[in-house]
Amino acid sequence: MPPSAATPRPTLLIIGGAEDRRGRASILKRFVKLAGGRKARIVIIPTASSFQDEVVQAYAEVFTRIGVASWSAVNPATRLDAGDPAGVAAIDDATGIFMSGGSQLRLSQIFAGTPLGEALHRAHRRGAVIGGTSAGASIMSEFMISLGDEGITPRQRSSQLSRGLGFIEGVVIDQHFAQRQRYGRLMSLIAMSPDLIGIGIDENTALEVVDGVRATVLGKGGVYVLDCRAAITDAPDARTGAPLLVSNAVVHSLPAGATFDLEKLVLVDFVEKHPDLDIKMTIAQSSQP
Amino acid sequence: MPPSAATPRPTLLIIGGAEDRRGRASILKRFVKLAGGRKARIVIIPTASSFQDEVVQAYAEVFTRIGVASWSAVNPATRLDAGDPAGVAAIDDATGIFMSGGSQLRLSQIFAGTPLGEALHRAHRRGAVIGGTSAGASIMSEFMISLGDEGITPRQRSSQLSRGLGFIEGVVIDQHFAQRQRYGRLMSLIAMSPDLIGIGIDENTALEVVDGVRATVLGKGGVYVLDCRAAITDAPDARTGAPLLVSNAVVHSLPAGATFDLEKLVLVDFVEKHPDLDIKMTIAQSSQP
Repeated sequence: MPPSAATPRPTLLIIGGAEDRRGRASILKRFVKLAGGRKARIVIIPTASSFQDEVVQAYAEVFTRIGVASWSAVNPATRLDAGDPAGVAAIDDATGIFMSGGSQLRLSQIFAGTPLGEALHRAHRRGAVIGGTSAGASIMSEFMISLGDEGITPRQRSSQLSRGLGFIEGVVIDQHFAQRQRYGRLMSLIAMSPDLIGIGIDENTALEVVDGVRATVLGKGGVYVLDCRAAITDAPDARTGAPLLVSNAVVHSLPAGATFDLEKLVLVDFVEKHPDLDIKMTIAQSSQP
Repeated sequence: MPPSAATPRPTLLIIGGAEDRRGRASILKRFVKLAGGRKARIVIIPTASSFQDEVVQAYAEVFTRIGVASWSAVNPATRLDAGDPAGVAAIDDATGIFMSGGSQLRLSQIFAGTPLGEALHRAHRRGAVIGGTSAGASIMSEFMISLGDEGITPRQRSSQLSRGLGFIEGVVIDQHFAQRQRYGRLMSLIAMSPDLIGIGIDENTALEVVDGVRATVLGKGGVYVLDCRAAITDAPDARTGAPLLVSNAVVHSLPAGATFDLEKLVLVDFVEKHPDLDIKMTIAQSSQP
């Protein structure tokens, strides 16, 4: 939705990496549509990548192919450069901002708490779509997963939490989820911080989040929501590397088309179709006052 | 516990494959202890394997090294051979039976509903320990996972259910769980049959099950319990190969030392330590009568 719309709805398009760019590019087409279609003004941020020029060229090509007339790149090299007024102006004028893959730590180093980062937040609030793939996906949360090991087994200290940009609160976003076997690292992280919700996104798959709450899956793979609010864990005590006890985790595996409420942590479609349902998420609770 | 004990407790030692046989062999030592220690009379069943002679030799070596004086092998080549009275007599006399890895379909073809299979059930009821690794683990349930694909994503028709031997009811056991990324295939299977419980066991890890209920983890990896009783799924309708919707699955990741109640589906230790807790497993229920 372009920023000129009557009621701007802050919208994120969070992509799990390896989106089909050369083929049908359906996820990137959705990004362009959310940014206003042919009239979109898109800013590409390749800062996470080690191949920034190639990244800008590749996304410029596909956005142009989709029909976008106006794009630019914003690419500060250091935290000091993130005060650049031209970059701030470009972001302030954009209807869509796209952050590439690479290292999410590079993004947070340069954008968190700088004038360019503040411009991104202004853009988000006024309804410009913020898109990001891989590192550009993880950076969107308040705190993000920045490092970790592969595997299904949740293990002690198998992942690390760092500061993100904070377009969405209360969640941690992981990407390349099934492809790089990141179930264990995300579960271990959520077990340790049970009031955070884990969101794992597969490659060539995206989660479109409106108002920080209503999340719809698109693309070829799945999105996973890991909820340890009622879990029992030995995370405070386990040895480094040991498999963690995480009992009573609630897991949602969501394919394309599923819409999920990130506040209530329930399937929106299902609840709308079954208004008589009383969804009880509390698994373990004291029967004493 | 040897069959001569006052109250025989049917005991299973379900191993996720690749148990450390040449090193400390702690899981196989536990098997021998449950079978009566040095006085154990162990029957090795290598029938699942394509290398049956080597398998018998390898397990005979390690059991002898642990101190077992008496072992034999029972290895019918066809379903007709599974009436062999000598094999039946060996199983009827055993204090422990160990089934090797290989193909669980080969085991079910030959043992299910034959005199040797009936002898295994008698052995289980009288308290001889039934051990099995990999294929020998999966075969233990009433119905078993027999084929499937790798990956974290639950996909439509990514696994198949076949008849097992039925020493334990209401569960489906998968093995090499984290190592071969079997989370998705087991979840898809449980989503389709939500009154079954999925149990995934890592390599060099085992679940010791007493009376079909009390299950304790031992070994290096984790055991995973997947519970879709309250899940919402599109499994009846999804296209072949498509990622499945499975919302509200409850997942337990259990390390060595954890004891789990397979009937109530809660952590035993935790419940015993917190008698005031009221564990509510119902996630979605109608508020109407």
